[in-house]
Amino acid sequence: MAETSARRVWCERALLADGVGEGVTIDIADGMITAVADRTDAAGAERLAGLTVPGFANAHSHAFHRALRGRTHGGPGDFWSWREQMYAVASRLTPDNYRDLATATFAEMLLAGYTSVGEFHYVHHQPDGTPYADPNAMGLAIIDAARATGIRLTLLDACYLRSGARQPVLAEQARFSDGTAAAWAERVELLTDDAMTRIGAAVHSVRAVDAESIGVVAEHARRRSMPLHAHVSEQLAENEQVFEEYECTPTELLARQGALNEHFTAVHATHLQQIDIDLLAARRCVCCFCPTTERDLADGIGPSSGLRTAGVRLSIGSDQHVAIDPFEEMRGIEMDERLRSRRRGTHPASELITAGTSHGYASLGWPAGGRIAVGALADLTTIGLDSVRLAGCDRRADALLDAVVFAAAAADVSDVIVGGRTVVRAGKHVSIDVADALERSIRAVTDGAPA
Amino acid sequence: MAETSARRVWCERALLADGVGEGVTIDIADGMITAVADRTDAAGAERLAGLTVPGFANAHSHAFHRALRGRTHGGPGDFWSWREQMYAVASRLTPDNYRDLATATFAEMLLAGYTSVGEFHYVHHQPDGTPYADPNAMGLAIIDAARATGIRLTLLDACYLRSGARQPVLAEQARFSDGTAAAWAERVELLTDDAMTRIGAAVHSVRAVDAESIGVVAEHARRRSMPLHAHVSEQLAENEQVFEEYECTPTELLARQGALNEHFTAVHATHLQQIDIDLLAARRCVCCFCPTTERDLADGIGPSSGLRTAGVRLSIGSDQHVAIDPFEEMRGIEMDERLRSRRRGTHPASELITAGTSHGYASLGWPAGGRIAVGALADLTTIGLDSVRLAGCDRRADALLDAVVFAAAAADVSDVIVGGRTVVRAGKHVSIDVADALERSIRAVTDGAPA
Repeated sequence: MAETSARRVWCERALLADGVGEGVTIDIADGMITAVADRTDAAGAERLAGLTVPGFANAHSHAFHRALRGRTHGGPGDFWSWREQMYAVASRLTPDNYRDLATATFAEMLLAGYTSVGEFHYVHHQPDGTPYADPNAMGLAIIDAARATGIRLTLLDACYLRSGARQPVLAEQARFSDGTAAAWAERVELLTDDAMTRIGAAVHSVRAVDAESIGVVAEHARRRSMPLHAHVSEQLAENEQVFEEYECTPTELLARQGALNEHFTAVHATHLQQIDIDLLAARRCVCCFCPTTERDLADGIGPSSGLRTAGVRLSIGSDQHVAIDPFEEMRGIEMDERLRSRRRGTHPASELITAGTSHGYASLGWPAGGRIAVGALADLTTIGLDSVRLAGCDRRADALLDAVVFAAAAADVSDVIVGGRTVVRAGKHVSIDVADALERSIRAVTDGAPA
Repeated sequence: MAETSARRVWCERALLADGVGEGVTIDIADGMITAVADRTDAAGAERLAGLTVPGFANAHSHAFHRALRGRTHGGPGDFWSWREQMYAVASRLTPDNYRDLATATFAEMLLAGYTSVGEFHYVHHQPDGTPYADPNAMGLAIIDAARATGIRLTLLDACYLRSGARQPVLAEQARFSDGTAAAWAERVELLTDDAMTRIGAAVHSVRAVDAESIGVVAEHARRRSMPLHAHVSEQLAENEQVFEEYECTPTELLARQGALNEHFTAVHATHLQQIDIDLLAARRCVCCFCPTTERDLADGIGPSSGLRTAGVRLSIGSDQHVAIDPFEEMRGIEMDERLRSRRRGTHPASELITAGTSHGYASLGWPAGGRIAVGALADLTTIGLDSVRLAGCDRRADALLDAVVFAAAAADVSDVIVGGRTVVRAGKHVSIDVADALERSIRAVTDGAPA
């Protein structure tokens, strides 16, 4: 889907490697940035007002959870009771209705300025566990959805084999399981990368995959330099279960099984111990925080300060999509740390932007993404500065990053370019009526929605 | 400013005393609701699509802090270092530029669905402490600003007499002080209520007002049944200072001095002890939480669960205006409680809406506000349900409240009526270009803003 013809855009302001530049001309060819110059005039180029930043990476998404927004937040309970509601939607998915739902959800991400998404995908088979005629029918539906919207996709195909220690999958988990890690690998091997799609791997969690199978998945990913993600220590119960089974932490188990390296991302990483932080740092892993989800699911506050001190890269994800807003996720890391520590300024705006962009791109297997520089992917997000939220902000270089990270909202995103192609213009997707697509596709997978 | 002519509006959905009704006709005369009927058709009435709720009360505002948005969030430090930056803006205020800034800020509140505001006002005099020719020049500028926008105002005129225990005001606090509580009362006595304005009182904090003077302010408010607000236990340092001076908690001191009754609101109430919660409950006080500020200033998480259990009413405020979004504040109470307790569902959506509406109105001295019922103030906020944020939500009665409280944003507000008069229509203020007004008025009070 990348634009092959060359184009030139001129940004009123743009975030470059050394800070915010003014009057920035960006040349693009074959989906890549071929030249960048600041203090230029706009003559002959398409003009982007506001602040242009590298497009944001949504490093952790379950697209179908978008159907749950507004439907699961009010009641009592915890992660586990929420999961029952989530499984009810999962049970209704088909390749066709999932394609529609993922298309609408990915389009909402583009409107919010996310130019890439890591779809952590585990609904593989028919509800009773029988494979579809094409065993990758569901994954291919997600790839089709990304293509239809223009978002860059890493399909993190997740291995899911059991309901807990030495327990087979539950009936409602049957469609997640390939039976064995070898069967998972065989199926995943049929999927192929392209210019806008990368195939990655995932261990759903150490709950859902036994140690030996974790080793098989890790080896498969390592041989192919694939991104490998896993839900890690989102809940204390997971830590307790793993300790009972293996007498170690989830992170230690993943390390033992060869999963931890620079291609590994620990998602949530909420209830880590210091030994886990040290391991993740030593193996140069990424941690993906999902603050809007971690609040909503009452997970707790992860050790972002300790991870930062240890040098672990952070990224962001909208996960269950109670909100799709990279600004909320970026500032959420710092805001929750403030609530925990009662100190401001652990994570400067510049680092939060890096979490939202280049660390996310790296986590998703696109090391050439997440920056505005020659040789980078031409994925760009432009933030208007003229809304009531940002009116009056200090527009001088670094001060502007503070305003954008701490006060902007998804609705401030005006233009989005992915792989050199404009997909959002003046706040609208170029080809999809996103609200209508969401309404129709969510209605198709939920009971009792209004007719 | 209230509309005196009668009008009739028809709401596709409206939040009534017994839940969400459909096809609701509301008759309005002299700024009050005179009739409500559901399951009606729209014939002859102005049509409001979406969900209409009682207008939100912003029970704690410092309007001039809006100029700080995006300018104070990135650095290190805590509440006290933030305060230095805030004082720098306070030093530049004049009645003229404050009128402009408050006008723009109140207009932004209306766009977000706040129909009333409690302006906690302490910048009374010239920078060196000399009164203006009219000693209420600053307060009157705020009243003018509210009138210009159409928002309902409670001017909480704050007594501020010292910098700490037995310490005179600092130079940068000189303009806050009337010298004595008696002089404060004499000045406040010159201000008068009208249909859209209530004069209330405030003890800035137990740091800034000595015990005897607290008694004077409390007595003044009690005799006039005025709302009385105070910043209470926002910081642990305040608790420590008060204990050193009085050997009690801030709440205990306020109780001793006669401040606590059903007209009293404790703002923030972050670091309360159980004895404080019991006192606030016994005296039927309100606590105003300001989650977006309390996160930003690294204050900590207040005991919303304990207050709820004790039966203390909660309200919301945007305080320093890092965000002006009642949905963020309402859900912030529950989200921060989830982070603290790791349990969901302490505060149901219906209670959070009550905090945002009727408890806030009560806190601001408008007991007839905050509900859609005969005899109530005709202050109404309509939330569109067709944005990408709310598309696909469950529109059935109570489920809709969950969606709105947990997933809506200020940008979803379409129409706002205050005192029977439309002030926001289709997402725009009827007479003010709000972004432009913010840009101009903030530039006037900040250094180094772009030309």
